[in-house]
Amino acid sequence: MKLAAGIDVGGTKCLGVVIDVDADISSERDIIRQVRYPTPHASQLVDTLAQLATELGEVETMSVGVPGLITLDGVMRASPNIPGSIDVAVKAELAARLGRPIWVDNDGNASALAEWRFGAGRESRNMWMVTLGTGIGGGHVVNGTLQRGVNGFAGEIGHMVVNPDGPRCTCGRKGCWEVYASGRGLRMLASGESGESVIERARQGDADAVTVLEAYARWLAIGLSNLANVSDPDVIVIGGGVSVAADFFMPMLRRWFLETLYSPEQRQHPDLRVAQLGEHAGAIGAALLPRFASAT
Amino acid sequence: MKLAAGIDVGGTKCLGVVIDVDADISSERDIIRQVRYPTPHASQLVDTLAQLATELGEVETMSVGVPGLITLDGVMRASPNIPGSIDVAVKAELAARLGRPIWVDNDGNASALAEWRFGAGRESRNMWMVTLGTGIGGGHVVNGTLQRGVNGFAGEIGHMVVNPDGPRCTCGRKGCWEVYASGRGLRMLASGESGESVIERARQGDADAVTVLEAYARWLAIGLSNLANVSDPDVIVIGGGVSVAADFFMPMLRRWFLETLYSPEQRQHPDLRVAQLGEHAGAIGAALLPRFASAT
Repeated sequence: MKLAAGIDVGGTKCLGVVIDVDADISSERDIIRQVRYPTPHASQLVDTLAQLATELGEVETMSVGVPGLITLDGVMRASPNIPGSIDVAVKAELAARLGRPIWVDNDGNASALAEWRFGAGRESRNMWMVTLGTGIGGGHVVNGTLQRGVNGFAGEIGHMVVNPDGPRCTCGRKGCWEVYASGRGLRMLASGESGESVIERARQGDADAVTVLEAYARWLAIGLSNLANVSDPDVIVIGGGVSVAADFFMPMLRRWFLETLYSPEQRQHPDLRVAQLGEHAGAIGAALLPRFASAT
Repeated sequence: MKLAAGIDVGGTKCLGVVIDVDADISSERDIIRQVRYPTPHASQLVDTLAQLATELGEVETMSVGVPGLITLDGVMRASPNIPGSIDVAVKAELAARLGRPIWVDNDGNASALAEWRFGAGRESRNMWMVTLGTGIGGGHVVNGTLQRGVNGFAGEIGHMVVNPDGPRCTCGRKGCWEVYASGRGLRMLASGESGESVIERARQGDADAVTVLEAYARWLAIGLSNLANVSDPDVIVIGGGVSVAADFFMPMLRRWFLETLYSPEQRQHPDLRVAQLGEHAGAIGAALLPRFASAT
């Protein structure tokens, strides 16, 4: 038994868990402890994390997943969803506060590790996880190792450009994948209607709503095919908001993926799967960082 | 000393070399033996490779780099530049003929290994090589390991879609990166004029030719930025046809790359470098496959 703590910093709450990284996690009952706090202003973030870590009790490793651009040194450069989060040295400050080493990575990377080890990506050898939220996050696990990149910024897949003269992205450039294929993208394609609403209308057979979802599925498939061309994965796990409508949406996505995949007749197709760990993925994945995250 | 043979199968010639993989290669004089044959019809390819291998003499490992889609089992599924090359089991047939194990991979992957070990990518930890030929080939070396993907098709970066409603690609889909950023793409952007000619006119200050090259550099930069978002490399090596005009072209490309790179102010920028090993890269890289190619 090897107890590991992982904390996921979200836009509204911080969720901490303790798991046994040598055991399996097949349901929420396998999580040994859970603690939640509201996410504070960035200036209080380390205080909250320290409090949360203390309440999680005795563990062998302590790790944190945070949204936004995170350097290999565990500095949160900026996170759009956490006010004041510019250059917060999460790793160094929390390590000093608690007197122990701390592992820190991007929340998308952490979720990818969790789904690979305990969720939809079990047994995969080369797995992309794609998280469809307000933007698009990603994480890549190859032969059991999380791919971090030399700055720690690998997996910023939402900013692949898929249409250089398309609408402006929040990053300032044009036609990034997440302009079209994120939750925000779905709302744009639906002319401002919420994703929940357009999916509900499509379920009821509304032709305009189905057209919107077809367009969305096509843009999503284009980016997934790009990942397949770059990395040739065996599994792509789809998580985040849209995946809650997976029963309706995945058949449509799989059809568009076959339309957009390069050389489909020459290869084993990447298997598109729906994420399984839900809101716990980030915290469970953070707990796995000490074992599976590579240096670059 | 560990002698390794590598053979590069090109559209017109097969080049075989013997190198010492424990030594450095800093010039052509460090290549121990070289043998060339014209590339035959695919039905005679294994005969030619067997003859070439015999002439290369005693070595510890024998490897081949071939163009096109190559499976992990060393089957050449199809190569646009080699007539008749459908499902040629290069690895199995050559191994049977020579009575020894043979390593086989895509020529883009082989070139990437060569540039990483002995060329422009020395010392890099996470390197993409991008070869601008008729199409665009690629190879990715992370922490000293060539990334092959589960089918052996990783690095098919020319078929990343960067404009889904753009012109038709040879693969049948629309707006693939190589439609714009390959040698063929440059000719398209130049309305049919050859790359050599438009570069020569641009060197002489012709404004229209400069405009064409600026458009080409922008498309090339978009795909390089996409690779940076996916993998966060420290080095990207540019090889192939256009790189012969690097003195003129690279400053333009570097400017566009900064325009298109995501979060340039937050990161060490990937270093764009020009390939150094020229026509020998494929054969030298093939010789390195037994040591540096991962299973997936």
